[in-house]
Amino acid sequence: MVATRNPVNLGAAARAMANFGFSRLRVVNPYDVAFREARSAVGAAPLLRAAEEYTAIGEAVSDSRLVVGTTSVGHRELQHSVRRLEYGARLIRKALARGPVALLFGSEKFGLSNEDLSHCQWLMRIPTISQNLSMNLGQAVALCLYELVRDSRASVARPEKIKPALAAENEQITALLLDTLRLSGYVNPVTANSTEEKVRRLVRRLNITGRDAPVLLGMLRQILWKLG
Amino acid sequence: MVATRNPVNLGAAARAMANFGFSRLRVVNPYDVAFREARSAVGAAPLLRAAEEYTAIGEAVSDSRLVVGTTSVGHRELQHSVRRLEYGARLIRKALARGPVALLFGSEKFGLSNEDLSHCQWLMRIPTISQNLSMNLGQAVALCLYELVRDSRASVARPEKIKPALAAENEQITALLLDTLRLSGYVNPVTANSTEEKVRRLVRRLNITGRDAPVLLGMLRQILWKLG
Repeated sequence: MVATRNPVNLGAAARAMANFGFSRLRVVNPYDVAFREARSAVGAAPLLRAAEEYTAIGEAVSDSRLVVGTTSVGHRELQHSVRRLEYGARLIRKALARGPVALLFGSEKFGLSNEDLSHCQWLMRIPTISQNLSMNLGQAVALCLYELVRDSRASVARPEKIKPALAAENEQITALLLDTLRLSGYVNPVTANSTEEKVRRLVRRLNITGRDAPVLLGMLRQILWKLG
Repeated sequence: MVATRNPVNLGAAARAMANFGFSRLRVVNPYDVAFREARSAVGAAPLLRAAEEYTAIGEAVSDSRLVVGTTSVGHRELQHSVRRLEYGARLIRKALARGPVALLFGSEKFGLSNEDLSHCQWLMRIPTISQNLSMNLGQAVALCLYELVRDSRASVARPEKIKPALAAENEQITALLLDTLRLSGYVNPVTANSTEEKVRRLVRRLNITGRDAPVLLGMLRQILWKLG
């Protein structure tokens, strides 16, 4: 975090790091008073307490094998290639296998300076839609870290299996529902057969789960009992 | 945003929505004073100004075809299936083709209540590593919206092509560098041939870009001029 002004953003960065399993927070020339206050505050994230402080960007990144700057979409930077977060994060994951990677976030107002950028091998940008509206700093940190740990296989994984009700349960529900409808005067005797089919199809369309079937049966029994 | 306490989080939600192209912000029972202050603040996001206020969750989601709740990882919710963000966002994107989707965020401290949850078809969770450390609300909103607009193809896309230097340029750099090294007394006459090869290989390993080649040549020419 370079020249961060608002301690709330340092706290948010520390929290996002803890959320996604990152551990080394380095701050370069933070707004001094705010940083000390945020760090010593009751309830400050342990990561923020343990933050290492530097006065020069070069020192802060000296032990990194890859240095990546972050930039808002509007940033015109001709000296570096700018990669979208989705792709840049993939490169960073690969690089992490070979050594530490430094991910730089500039100040809320000005982003990274040209001197900061000169330490970067390339830049990463979050694909926001607006050219002019920069991201909130704390949110930008969270997004970058999330993308780094994001599991692309999870996006195509099936959710946990939900056991559907047995056909017998659906039929039992159908029968009790029909009894209820008959007792309620819903069923026209002339069209009773087609009503039965309609109700049977409707019950199947509900995709009742195995867990919900007994609950529905209980409800229907109770209603039937009340109806007489 | 349900029962949001801190107006900063409403502002952060509005900003993330603007960043990623979402437009309808609905607040249900926000902490009243804070909400009114945040909304009327100078510089409040237009989305926050336009936020629709509700007192009942059912009304807030009434025109949605899908209602999805968000939950921290520690949340034990047996009545709903809980889907990881990566997968849930895919389902939401599909559902958006069929009608509006409501995405619910609970209060900073308690999350969504059981009553709120009863309006949800299923739940989505952000895959944080810690069971006990919930996400910052503003960051959680940003992550969910980012995942909704995230371009999975971009993660495998090639970055913009960078034109490498021509072989002739690399050779010119090699020649000038060798001249410089000779003039500097770096080259041992006995091993001059192997030095030349070493320098040539080193220059190729640098992967100099077409843009940087003339710059390096200029530097070397200047050094050579100075050396004699």
